[in-house]
Amino acid sequence: MKAIIIEGEPGIGNLRLVERPMPTPRRQEVIVRIRATALNYRDLEIIRGSYHTRFPLPLIPISDGVGEVVAIGEDVSRVAIGDRVCSTFWQRWVGGSFDMAEPSYQRGGPLDGLLTEYAALDEQAVVPAPAHLTDLEAATLPCAGVTAWHSLVTEGRVHAGDTILVLGTGGVSIFALQFAVNAGARVIVTSSSDEKIERARALGAAAGVNYRRHPQWADAVIELTQGRGVDHVLEVGGPDSFAQSLKAVRRGGQISVIGYLGGTEGTINPLDIFRRQVTVRGIPVGSRASFEAMARAIDAGRIRPVIDRCYPWMDIGEALRHLAGGTHFGKIVLQH
Amino acid sequence: MKAIIIEGEPGIGNLRLVERPMPTPRRQEVIVRIRATALNYRDLEIIRGSYHTRFPLPLIPISDGVGEVVAIGEDVSRVAIGDRVCSTFWQRWVGGSFDMAEPSYQRGGPLDGLLTEYAALDEQAVVPAPAHLTDLEAATLPCAGVTAWHSLVTEGRVHAGDTILVLGTGGVSIFALQFAVNAGARVIVTSSSDEKIERARALGAAAGVNYRRHPQWADAVIELTQGRGVDHVLEVGGPDSFAQSLKAVRRGGQISVIGYLGGTEGTINPLDIFRRQVTVRGIPVGSRASFEAMARAIDAGRIRPVIDRCYPWMDIGEALRHLAGGTHFGKIVLQH
Amino acid sequence: MKAIIIEGEPGIGNLRLVERPMPTPRRQEVIVRIRATALNYRDLEIIRGSYHTRFPLPLIPISDGVGEVVAIGEDVSRVAIGDRVCSTFWQRWVGGSFDMAEPSYQRGGPLDGLLTEYAALDEQAVVPAPAHLTDLEAATLPCAGVTAWHSLVTEGRVHAGDTILVLGTGGVSIFALQFAVNAGARVIVTSSSDEKIERARALGAAAGVNYRRHPQWADAVIELTQGRGVDHVLEVGGPDSFAQSLKAVRRGGQISVIGYLGGTEGTINPLDIFRRQVTVRGIPVGSRASFEAMARAIDAGRIRPVIDRCYPWMDIGEALRHLAGGTHFGKIVLQH
Amino acid sequence: MKAIIIEGEPGIGNLRLVERPMPTPRRQEVIVRIRATALNYRDLEIIRGSYHTRFPLPLIPISDGVGEVVAIGEDVSRVAIGDRVCSTFWQRWVGGSFDMAEPSYQRGGPLDGLLTEYAALDEQAVVPAPAHLTDLEAATLPCAGVTAWHSLVTEGRVHAGDTILVLGTGGVSIFALQFAVNAGARVIVTSSSDEKIERARALGAAAGVNYRRHPQWADAVIELTQGRGVDHVLEVGGPDSFAQSLKAVRRGGQISVIGYLGGTEGTINPLDIFRRQVTVRGIPVGSRASFEAMARAIDAGRIRPVIDRCYPWMDIGEALRHLAGGTHFGKIVLQH
Repeated sequence: MKAIIIEGEPGIGNLRLVERPMPTPRRQEVIVRIRATALNYRDLEIIRGSYHTRFPLPLIPISDGVGEVVAIGEDVSRVAIGDRVCSTFWQRWVGGSFDMAEPSYQRGGPLDGLLTEYAALDEQAVVPAPAHLTDLEAATLPCAGVTAWHSLVTEGRVHAGDTILVLGTGGVSIFALQFAVNAGARVIVTSSSDEKIERARALGAAAGVNYRRHPQWADAVIELTQGRGVDHVLEVGGPDSFAQSLKAVRRGGQISVIGYLGGTEGTINPLDIFRRQVTVRGIPVGSRASFEAMARAIDAGRIRPVIDRCYPWMDIGEALRHLAGGTHFGKIVLQH
Repeated sequence: MKAIIIEGEPGIGNLRLVERPMPTPRRQEVIVRIRATALNYRDLEIIRGSYHTRFPLPLIPISDGVGEVVAIGEDVSRVAIGDRVCSTFWQRWVGGSFDMAEPSYQRGGPLDGLLTEYAALDEQAVVPAPAHLTDLEAATLPCAGVTAWHSLVTEGRVHAGDTILVLGTGGVSIFALQFAVNAGARVIVTSSSDEKIERARALGAAAGVNYRRHPQWADAVIELTQGRGVDHVLEVGGPDSFAQSLKAVRRGGQISVIGYLGGTEGTINPLDIFRRQVTVRGIPVGSRASFEAMARAIDAGRIRPVIDRCYPWMDIGEALRHLAGGTHFGKIVLQH
Repeated sequence: MKAIIIEGEPGIGNLRLVERPMPTPRRQEVIVRIRATALNYRDLEIIRGSYHTRFPLPLIPISDGVGEVVAIGEDVSRVAIGDRVCSTFWQRWVGGSFDMAEPSYQRGGPLDGLLTEYAALDEQAVVPAPAHLTDLEAATLPCAGVTAWHSLVTEGRVHAGDTILVLGTGGVSIFALQFAVNAGARVIVTSSSDEKIERARALGAAAGVNYRRHPQWADAVIELTQGRGVDHVLEVGGPDSFAQSLKAVRRGGQISVIGYLGGTEGTINPLDIFRRQVTVRGIPVGSRASFEAMARAIDAGRIRPVIDRCYPWMDIGEALRHLAGGTHFGKIVLQH
Repeated sequence: MKAIIIEGEPGIGNLRLVERPMPTPRRQEVIVRIRATALNYRDLEIIRGSYHTRFPLPLIPISDGVGEVVAIGEDVSRVAIGDRVCSTFWQRWVGGSFDMAEPSYQRGGPLDGLLTEYAALDEQAVVPAPAHLTDLEAATLPCAGVTAWHSLVTEGRVHAGDTILVLGTGGVSIFALQFAVNAGARVIVTSSSDEKIERARALGAAAGVNYRRHPQWADAVIELTQGRGVDHVLEVGGPDSFAQSLKAVRRGGQISVIGYLGGTEGTINPLDIFRRQVTVRGIPVGSRASFEAMARAIDAGRIRPVIDRCYPWMDIGEALRHLAGGTHFGKIVLQH
């Protein structure tokens, strides 16, 4: 079978197509014929070597994908041959709080990822894909979808009537927008583009703030909430953005810290967390329990993930460069 | 000013229109010009004397209503003259768990209710009415709305993707249907009437079971959930209904015990709660915090309470008889 | 190696000592040399055929035990050879809510139990035993300990200052007493024996009620709590006991339904749950996360499980008859 | 009656003893004869003008105290004449989450405090003092006690077996130490003094770190926890301390941000919250529900607050200077 690996040194240029032996299923394992994968910023960072951890190479990259179960090992009872399943990001975080996640069992590094024809996955680390989704749509769920769900629902306990702030229009933010709207919440979105704000409104956002025109976007958010601030910010921007999120959130509200698309440099005074009386939570994607709950919601609400662009999986380099460009709206996916 | 009281002995026939002195606001009190009230089964029981507690008479009945603040006392800071506010059922349950509710501070008995022109209410015991609602709609919120919200959201922590079972089409059940649909849940409703099931579907219910055709309606619910059972039952039927709810709920699921429209007699073996591994929760309406959260959701979702029929408040007797008949769909309200 | 099985028909008389092949560890499995096991009422019922489910025979009974890891399979990373580990009751309930527990993976039926020299256990289904415990003490944790912990802590969220009612002096009740005292709660215990009440007081119970002298023991409990009722009852008595527990608990309190040592017959009116505004919860032992949290507490508090009597494991029949007699205080264990 | 006020400008030198009219109780108010008060760092800051908010003067300072109810107004049902009650910090935060607290109802500024002979308090804003405490001990509960309880229990959901880190030996830290030990947790304390560490150990701390000898005290904490880190830090030190707390906490753990005894300047990169996957929570003292739960725990555990030194209330200036010195262990109190 074919797989793409990073070899030697990190770098998009060091991705290589190789032949690998066809895997056979061991106890509690399933073999999945991969049909589609989806890119996350973490994948880009691992491939180009800017991720905070360096994993041993060679490595098959890309954590998220979907495929068909073509073989099952001994003692497999959760899935059957022919099932269409997604991978989970944490191979060993079935449920419960984050201290139940066994470190070093993250897919796409250090565990081999899904940029391959066939992958061997633990049966505890797959989730049936919602039936109404295409393969390309289903591939987007494991990281971006679960991160948004875990932030908003599992930890954030979003209620109908809450006001949620999402930053930009990347994968996690668009999922958060869709899940929040589906849960009866009111969503405000920031973007550098009025056209993207319009697309977000078409998905149900109540309002948008163009941060090019409003560099102090927290003020605009405060105005849109009649001075109250939002209940929950999904913070993907990094330290400078965080400082504004602290101003945009209501006292007693929540900030989920998820990413750093606007850079990793910058600081805050942690006493501002005290002065604003907010809860700030680092978000580690989420457990399989969160994934399964999300899948039920996607199914019941007939939610469809938003695809920005699709590439053949052999064009991974081009897809990564598009992701790095930061102009996307929703998810970038690969057809296998 | 005019008020209607129960005098002498309980009984719909013992309701009397009387003159009362116009109230003046004391410290932390507001005077509300009542514009609309709404009936609950508890009101009917108190008036006809079948409620489990007997309150001293004379009593102004009816706990739920809405009106305009026309005067405020010393140290009132939460509301202003001209505000349109709903009463709360518990005068003294601002927030937190039920042990924070001070007993004996329930409106409509033992505290005087709202079947009057003007009422003096504590400022801690009123909530601004959502602006898009008519007076008649807003009057329905304090008991039926809050009970549904408290069951589903505050205690039940409903998620998008959950399946909720509501029994019949009375006030609490229709609110629960609306709140669950708004939160992205899937709703199954039971009714004796196909026509009511159709109306419930128009409000967003995914499926209905006619319990006249399916006296063992739990079996039909199990079938509608592919054998899994529902996540949460809002149980308003009484003991016989409860026995079926125990069959209709999934293992690990929830039953909120709210009422007994089908009668108070009957028994279960409590070990069935153990065998089904469910959580059963008696629901005491809810706190003002629940009311305020619900009001934000109603506002954000532009939810409109369902009015079955409206009567002039002087026709309280006729309205109560309609409620007793049990043929309504949604709430019965009184115009003041 | 040697093992004891139930063969043919249920019945203590049908337990047979047999030779079985020495197990070898498969992927993600460990082989444990069993050093001690402990009896639960469920084991007794399975063996004598009165359990609500009949499992295929032959079956190695007994769910709870401790032993030393003597071999590990491929991909085992959580434990190492030489570790002393307890089994978990649910092989597949790592963490999260009960719907994450995969049915049919219960140890001691339908899965083979630990009444054997060596057992093959999934690495996800073992927990390191607290170091200060003897083997006999550690063997008692998987069901009785975890059930008490899950009821009190995981679900019941016991606080210092709460009042807890435990019924009788069986394994779960004594664990609950110890865990509640260790958490700063006040414990009331019921028993048929003043001598056992004294022993419970020596373990930290604040008060006891002899239910032979007070057949209406709920009244005595109400008196001991100055009319308030207890915050949480761990209900192990069955339907008749449950009716009294409903009287002994405060409004807004909790009842965990765990067992039926006083018989399975009897009924309640479920509306009493509504009228008392309590939460009633069926308790399915608990997850591995609960076990691990409990183990940390046992370690920090140097808690020692209470052993009633120890038998050689070959004397399982005698041990079961002692359990059936119901005169024990704490746990009955087997030395392997 | 006599009271002490800050007049003109902030400053310890601007405290003045004045005569004020004896208060009379209005509706829902009680008059309390103050017997003892206790100092918090916030009081010091308000008095000397370094608090982040300036309140209108004149102001009677000091939020925390205890006294006897000597008169009650209309509609008072929660307390009776002769009761011994503590004040609550938030006059209007009965229960539920922090968004239920009405801003501007904080005692000691902007509301008048308790440095007086008699105070008029809302009946919703008093809590009966645990009977076994002296007046001086009971006076310490409203801020320091409730802050520790709210951090550890209400929000932090401390379990037996958790490891808690408290910084220094001020009022909140010593309460946190006592509450954590009482709940079965393991406590590590930092201090500049071996003698204070010994006193903390006598109160139940498992270990101490002298931060003079270990300026990088986080490393010592990691070592004391075998590399795991603590479950929860009660962070009272300020930004520089916070940076170390982020290293001392386990992944998935909690940091409660409470104060800034080590200064207000300094910064962190908020992405470290993401990288460590922790939850950081600003703590606003707590609700009356938290106070009442704490009082039950103090009562059941016969916990006694630790008094550092007592002054006559007329010597408030001296007491404040002692507080400012920062050498205390536990609470500084005033006898009225």
